[in-house]
Amino acid sequence: MTFLFNSDARRGAVFADAFAEALPDVPFTMDAATVDPGTVRYLITWTVPADLDRYRNLEVLFSIGAGVDQFQLDLVPAHVKVVRMVEAGIVRMMQEYAALAVLTLHRNMPSYAAQQRMRQWRPLPQIQATERRVGILGLGMLAQAVLERLQPFGFALAGWSRRPRALAGIACHHGEAGLKAMLRTTDILVCLLPLTDETRGFLDAALFSKLPAGAALVHVGRGPQLDHDALLAALDSGQLSGAVIDVTDPEPLPEDHPFWLHPQIVLTPHIASVTQAATAARAVVENMQRLRAGLDPIGLVDRTRGY
Amino acid sequence: MTFLFNSDARRGAVFADAFAEALPDVPFTMDAATVDPGTVRYLITWTVPADLDRYRNLEVLFSIGAGVDQFQLDLVPAHVKVVRMVEAGIVRMMQEYAALAVLTLHRNMPSYAAQQRMRQWRPLPQIQATERRVGILGLGMLAQAVLERLQPFGFALAGWSRRPRALAGIACHHGEAGLKAMLRTTDILVCLLPLTDETRGFLDAALFSKLPAGAALVHVGRGPQLDHDALLAALDSGQLSGAVIDVTDPEPLPEDHPFWLHPQIVLTPHIASVTQAATAARAVVENMQRLRAGLDPIGLVDRTRGY
Repeated sequence: MTFLFNSDARRGAVFADAFAEALPDVPFTMDAATVDPGTVRYLITWTVPADLDRYRNLEVLFSIGAGVDQFQLDLVPAHVKVVRMVEAGIVRMMQEYAALAVLTLHRNMPSYAAQQRMRQWRPLPQIQATERRVGILGLGMLAQAVLERLQPFGFALAGWSRRPRALAGIACHHGEAGLKAMLRTTDILVCLLPLTDETRGFLDAALFSKLPAGAALVHVGRGPQLDHDALLAALDSGQLSGAVIDVTDPEPLPEDHPFWLHPQIVLTPHIASVTQAATAARAVVENMQRLRAGLDPIGLVDRTRGY
Repeated sequence: MTFLFNSDARRGAVFADAFAEALPDVPFTMDAATVDPGTVRYLITWTVPADLDRYRNLEVLFSIGAGVDQFQLDLVPAHVKVVRMVEAGIVRMMQEYAALAVLTLHRNMPSYAAQQRMRQWRPLPQIQATERRVGILGLGMLAQAVLERLQPFGFALAGWSRRPRALAGIACHHGEAGLKAMLRTTDILVCLLPLTDETRGFLDAALFSKLPAGAALVHVGRGPQLDHDALLAALDSGQLSGAVIDVTDPEPLPEDHPFWLHPQIVLTPHIASVTQAATAARAVVENMQRLRAGLDPIGLVDRTRGY
């Protein structure tokens, strides 16, 4: 019942320590070359290895990242449990980044940056937070954590999910009609959707056209959800006034891509939220203990939904 | 017992409405030219008018702004109460701006902006918030409100004031020795001090040298507190790694000033916090009611301290 760690060695050392302390009876290895594949019951990895079928007794496949969209799930036997990474470090970093991005747009920082480059000292009109409508696409665990961090600032908060949700202090929308209703009343749109076939290309010209003119975008979902050309067109026409973009397709963004030097785009290299070794190791240890107790692991993926 | 409003007319209209509703028996005017000066018992203004002595029955002088450092207090008779503007709008805007500035430095946004301009996709090492020590100079009402907003992010928080304070979850320092102790353990220093003779030039080379190498500065106090040359020298030597600056001396900053194009300085034109007419009018009405009830107004200035 070996646990095979297939990711970078620095993180692996932190996991090895955590397993040695909390699960001393679980053999832990980072060496796929020498492990007896028939003993591997647990595997943690970023992508599904091409030779996955050699682990013929595999029971649980853990993702080292928050999403599982990078997993080719059709390579994974149906009986294998697939588990997302749900750990405090990822959540905290996303709360920080999303709050930073929303405040950056709320307080007109891209315009102030442009004025600074032009040596212009000019205060701009400022809408109060209570008048600023922030809408989040996705109401999963990360989105809820982000809303919790935005709430004290007094923003008018809304969220959209495929299925109905109820969250205190948040205008919750769902389904196709709910999406239109939320977009119509959103000044700053935050995308925190998982990547699935349904969300690929979700942020497109049709969606942007449903926002009030001059709205802004924070994209912290996955690169393939955003139609780059549609964003550029919306910024050029004034339909959107600015964007904070952390994920692109492809990554890294090619050197000649127009996002780099666009004055109304703040671009970061997929750093909003990164798995933290110490808290991730604790989360996986806890999930191993849950599995042994016959409980579902936290972050168990619904294979039919894909997240 | 007239209330004379000596500031911009747009704000004045909001004040006029608030007085008409809550204090219908208090004559309210914005017209200094036609008012009988002997009837003026209350005056709200940004600077002390040169002809203040014509208001021979003046009892209370309100500042339209958060500070009173722009008041020439020696022009104001000793028996006149001087009152700072304490209103919810100022507090909320400062909470937003300070949180935005701290997160901007915490998440290396000036470096990411520089990388974006150079078309570089390169994730940088990221310290976790619990390891990031944020120290605030000043522990007054605004600083406490800022700390409250920073606390949920998990930063290690400290504050310094002239006199001892105790605040839950904040390492409180005071006096000369306390200042050194706090600076030694501060990664992001936020200045929220009032401007007095003691704080003029406070942010100087000696102060910067007491911070750990690579620390960063958020300046949301008053322009004359910062030694511009010392900041530039500290950034050039690497003693400081970045700064978010909202106040300068003079304002506006001259066009040829080196702050404008410095890659590690984020500069905004004194917009962190601006008096909001509606909440300010409510705050002044409440203070008028307190004065009538024989209570001290909120924001009463200690003339010996100057704030």
